[in-house]
Amino acid sequence: MAAFEFVCTECGARYGEVEVRTVCPACAGRQEPGGVIRGVLAVALESMPSTWPAAGPASAEFLCAFLPIPSADWLAPLPVGDTPLLPVPRLRRELDMPSLWVKDDSRNPSGSTKDRASHLVVAKARQYGLDTVATASTGNAATALAAVAAASGVRAVAFVPHTAPEGKLAQLLCYGAEVLPVEGTYDDAFELCLAACDRFGWYNRNTGLNPFTIEGKKTAALEIARQLAPDVPDAVLVPTGDGVIVAGVAKGFADLAQAGLIDRVPRLIAVQPAGSAAIVAALRAGAEEATAFPGAHSVADSLTVEMPRNGRQALAAIRASRGHGVTVEDEAILAAIPRLARSTGVFAEPAAAAALAGLETALAQDLVARDERVVLLVTGTGLKDVPAAFRTVTRPPPLPPTIDAVAERLGVR
Amino acid sequence: MAAFEFVCTECGARYGEVEVRTVCPACAGRQEPGGVIRGVLAVALESMPSTWPAAGPASAEFLCAFLPIPSADWLAPLPVGDTPLLPVPRLRRELDMPSLWVKDDSRNPSGSTKDRASHLVVAKARQYGLDTVATASTGNAATALAAVAAASGVRAVAFVPHTAPEGKLAQLLCYGAEVLPVEGTYDDAFELCLAACDRFGWYNRNTGLNPFTIEGKKTAALEIARQLAPDVPDAVLVPTGDGVIVAGVAKGFADLAQAGLIDRVPRLIAVQPAGSAAIVAALRAGAEEATAFPGAHSVADSLTVEMPRNGRQALAAIRASRGHGVTVEDEAILAAIPRLARSTGVFAEPAAAAALAGLETALAQDLVARDERVVLLVTGTGLKDVPAAFRTVTRPPPLPPTIDAVAERLGVR
Repeated sequence: MAAFEFVCTECGARYGEVEVRTVCPACAGRQEPGGVIRGVLAVALESMPSTWPAAGPASAEFLCAFLPIPSADWLAPLPVGDTPLLPVPRLRRELDMPSLWVKDDSRNPSGSTKDRASHLVVAKARQYGLDTVATASTGNAATALAAVAAASGVRAVAFVPHTAPEGKLAQLLCYGAEVLPVEGTYDDAFELCLAACDRFGWYNRNTGLNPFTIEGKKTAALEIARQLAPDVPDAVLVPTGDGVIVAGVAKGFADLAQAGLIDRVPRLIAVQPAGSAAIVAALRAGAEEATAFPGAHSVADSLTVEMPRNGRQALAAIRASRGHGVTVEDEAILAAIPRLARSTGVFAEPAAAAALAGLETALAQDLVARDERVVLLVTGTGLKDVPAAFRTVTRPPPLPPTIDAVAERLGVR
Repeated sequence: MAAFEFVCTECGARYGEVEVRTVCPACAGRQEPGGVIRGVLAVALESMPSTWPAAGPASAEFLCAFLPIPSADWLAPLPVGDTPLLPVPRLRRELDMPSLWVKDDSRNPSGSTKDRASHLVVAKARQYGLDTVATASTGNAATALAAVAAASGVRAVAFVPHTAPEGKLAQLLCYGAEVLPVEGTYDDAFELCLAACDRFGWYNRNTGLNPFTIEGKKTAALEIARQLAPDVPDAVLVPTGDGVIVAGVAKGFADLAQAGLIDRVPRLIAVQPAGSAAIVAALRAGAEEATAFPGAHSVADSLTVEMPRNGRQALAAIRASRGHGVTVEDEAILAAIPRLARSTGVFAEPAAAAALAGLETALAQDLVARDERVVLLVTGTGLKDVPAAFRTVTRPPPLPPTIDAVAERLGVR
């Protein structure tokens, strides 16, 4: 097992696993409703392997080597991660980028990167003997929780904006989660989930708050590094809402550097919608913490966040990687959906396609060079939000079932 | 490479790969519009390994050992198959079936088993230097073709019923296929695609017609056998429309038995909707060929077929396995969606959930015993047809963002 301590990301205090559950008791008193979460904990593993485990990323050997769990038996019987790193030859030619890859996390069980976090959080809940796990979510984190909880027999409570895409709601309900469609934004759902966990004693999976969300998401970086080894990517583009995926990816590369498995960390490029860009704004302002981005809005519902509750970790990680952030307009996000699908066979939800839109911006801003080794993290499947996909293509009219109609429609004879 | 010959499934004539493209020239003259396809060819490999390849099912080594391709370089750079065989502990307890597995093919790139067939067909098109591949489809086969074709740079033409679910249409359009939403049924689309391929010289991927669709789908069986080795399942339940998935699964087990890698083949249980049950009707009637099932209809759009064009192969394979078929009502199919999701974390489209509905029928009819080793093939993700999923659950009303509203909604305090 990978033994670990919690380390407060603000005051640096260290705690054993049995001493605390979510945040640093010393810092928690400074909490303000609607604000930054004070005293977020990071996981510090006591030891890691200095060579890659022989078994693959979905194996018990691999997971127990890098994750803070005493046994893989706590993990749900639903394999998560071990997703393909695609060489994308056609997109490489289009962009003149011979060393471009797509990490296709849409192939996780519930269709998004969030499964990685839920896999670990639910395992910890089982280890701790907790029977209810709650989360606030724009949709994917809750869906991931619901899927993993269903496979494990744990109760899931999901606070989502009542405007969440239909596909995500359908998944949640079919998986059997208690679904609470909150009349409000993701930020309202976040606050309500915090209060409910306090009052009802549920384990809180809220992203940015629960230290195991970042720790679970780091497996995306472990896999990328192992798939490219002995090379290391120069840059990884990560769709970013509240910053927890990018912080998780950073934690993965940091752990590997500490273990000596990679000799440097890639630059992390956070991609945010122009209408929901709190992290990128803070990067540009040189701020240590993100501030609220009131009225945040985007076609990429997964990235629509007013207040990144734990922007601190994301900002520090991006800076430590010598990375940066870019913003992309909704129009560019939508255009990237068919562009990615047509050149790679990967159908992405708006938030995930934003990685490709962000790549073009990053190239234009010289944040990435065409000859570098670059990875796009595709965080969720396009089937999660079919109406958004239809905004990007023209629906052909029905065709009479005759060969002449075919010839006419396609201009062939 | 796996060298092979084509063998006519009707007259037994054998052909080298360069001699024919789709059907047996000797039998093709008996073709009648709208009827059974005459002279469907099967692939007979000249040699197969007598031990399992060391590398996994997605590797070039594995695929070249069992598939009729000279090199894995022809395959699209989009890994297909190698999907998990889930032990489903909670569903096992619910059903008192300690040796039940779910083969989760929803985790293929476009979200269905059909990716297996398209992966091979597009590889063959590339090998043959053909630039356009067309198919008729209820939705998933076309979507699979479109995804693989996009990754490979091959043109895809998709004939689908204009009533295909929105998720499947969105995928098709985003992947850049030429989409022809036919005013008619799947059977009309099938006939139109046949005519168009004849007239325009396109390579026809129509399922049941192109011998490589069965050959590609057999990889599901290869994986199941390898994942359970040295055990062999007693029964595999396969959602069935035109019978090509079940024929493909049968071909996989038959090849393995011939290679000596398994010592017997599992019983194959075809699961069909009561409203679209041509194969099961023929099984019950002892017929060698299926006859049309006029007005076929089901909530499982993927299984809605009036005329299985190559029922012969499916029927022979099911009988050779000492298997059988069951029918399930739409209500049972719908109920199986949340039941499967809640007990396993696998969210299935109606056609795929039908496997679980069929299991209950098969248990009741003593076609399967509770202590046998049984595998359910889950053929497609629930995100393909979100409106169908919503028919199975109750949508909770929006919740005011207050803790009291949460307490009241959940009956907690």
